[in-house]
Amino acid sequence: MNNVIETMLNHRSVRKFKDEALTHEQIKTIVEAAQSASTSSFIQAYSIIGITDKEKKKKLAELAGNQSYVAENGHVFVFCADLHRHDVAAAMEGKDVSTSLESTEKFMVSLIDAALAAQNAALAAESMGLGICYIGGIRNQLPEVVELLKTPDRVLPLFAIVAGYPDQHTDIKPRVPFHHVYHENEYEQDLETYKQELEEYNNIISAYYQERTNNERSDTWTAQMIGMLDKKARLYMKEFVEGKKFDLK
Amino acid sequence: MNNVIETMLNHRSVRKFKDEALTHEQIKTIVEAAQSASTSSFIQAYSIIGITDKEKKKKLAELAGNQSYVAENGHVFVFCADLHRHDVAAAMEGKDVSTSLESTEKFMVSLIDAALAAQNAALAAESMGLGICYIGGIRNQLPEVVELLKTPDRVLPLFAIVAGYPDQHTDIKPRVPFHHVYHENEYEQDLETYKQELEEYNNIISAYYQERTNNERSDTWTAQMIGMLDKKARLYMKEFVEGKKFDLK
Repeated sequence: MNNVIETMLNHRSVRKFKDEALTHEQIKTIVEAAQSASTSSFIQAYSIIGITDKEKKKKLAELAGNQSYVAENGHVFVFCADLHRHDVAAAMEGKDVSTSLESTEKFMVSLIDAALAAQNAALAAESMGLGICYIGGIRNQLPEVVELLKTPDRVLPLFAIVAGYPDQHTDIKPRVPFHHVYHENEYEQDLETYKQELEEYNNIISAYYQERTNNERSDTWTAQMIGMLDKKARLYMKEFVEGKKFDLK
Repeated sequence: MNNVIETMLNHRSVRKFKDEALTHEQIKTIVEAAQSASTSSFIQAYSIIGITDKEKKKKLAELAGNQSYVAENGHVFVFCADLHRHDVAAAMEGKDVSTSLESTEKFMVSLIDAALAAQNAALAAESMGLGICYIGGIRNQLPEVVELLKTPDRVLPLFAIVAGYPDQHTDIKPRVPFHHVYHENEYEQDLETYKQELEEYNNIISAYYQERTNNERSDTWTAQMIGMLDKKARLYMKEFVEGKKFDLK
């Protein structure tokens, strides 16, 4: 196994960082690594906003659900889907391409583009000995996040990555079994097999929690997921996304 | 610079592969690397379908716009947004969570999750000396792709990665300048600065093509983008996505 793959397999989320800031050089390397990811038809439909202002970090931490480690040390990179760049390009070329820019297809492209870049950024940071955590919580209150970061129409903050020197040890969580996530030639057609695989995974996750909590916690993956999905989070998203001119047409 | 970042910066798309198949071990490592990526609230909302059947590969290559290198050697990994897993989990837990599963928010989560995993897969393959190319072309004719791969409702094929031993040398394409993609504390508010940065980038891209084509090609990035966006590709997407029960509510 080479050390690129080793770095990946060694990933765990880190939510507590030492009081040591990233250098400008490190930030630049992380962003350039992000940009090296593939991009659909060279569209580069994302932007990254780094937060260094302490007041702004504090406010963002509050908006993301009072996640104090976002406010404290660690550098915050906010990843945004960005088709504003292409709107400006269209003005420069004297064309109107709003039909494309407001299509569900291009919404998908910009999300995928941003996520490919983000994963390179996350891994680049980890390869430097930093710990990282993705913060989807910024989607709790996007109108306020957009106001804070002054993003124009056609720019949509998606999530943040916080990166810093780890000040905690966390464990690697086991993923769904290989044969459940990877299908050959066609998707698994047998629902009973599919359910058995999830039961198998439930046992793995349940054992994982038991071992780490002296048997106090033993929830399964399916129970955890359905508990989370039952909460119906962020149902304002469609209206908000369309309001930012990602029109889902 | 460490060799994780070196592998990233060395990325270029490869579209011609030697006639040497990936081993099962390589495929398993690539998938496990993919699974190590972060996942929103542990949701793991994606699946990967590997295509080994020669007829199926040929058909997929046709559907992706007659990209013959997809049909030939190189392993095809199709990445799918997947909330079917959570639908089955809901049945196992005796709950109805369709409001969540049909929300724009969870559509976004599943796309981001799939893309984070894919970028790990791509980089893992490259770290093994393989070349890769993302194939967004499978979105040209998704109804046929879904039929070919027999994906159920709430599973949406997004793109493929083809990976194999490189049989061509390709160049690294320069990305938009650092100060254009990376903002500090707030998005660039000055439209003139923003346009100047794009002009600057246009010059870089134009020189890049001129150098490689003996001055025959000299298009700028903005011209290339607006040419592409003017084509209004895949406008069927909204209806199709909703038909697959990603309801964008």
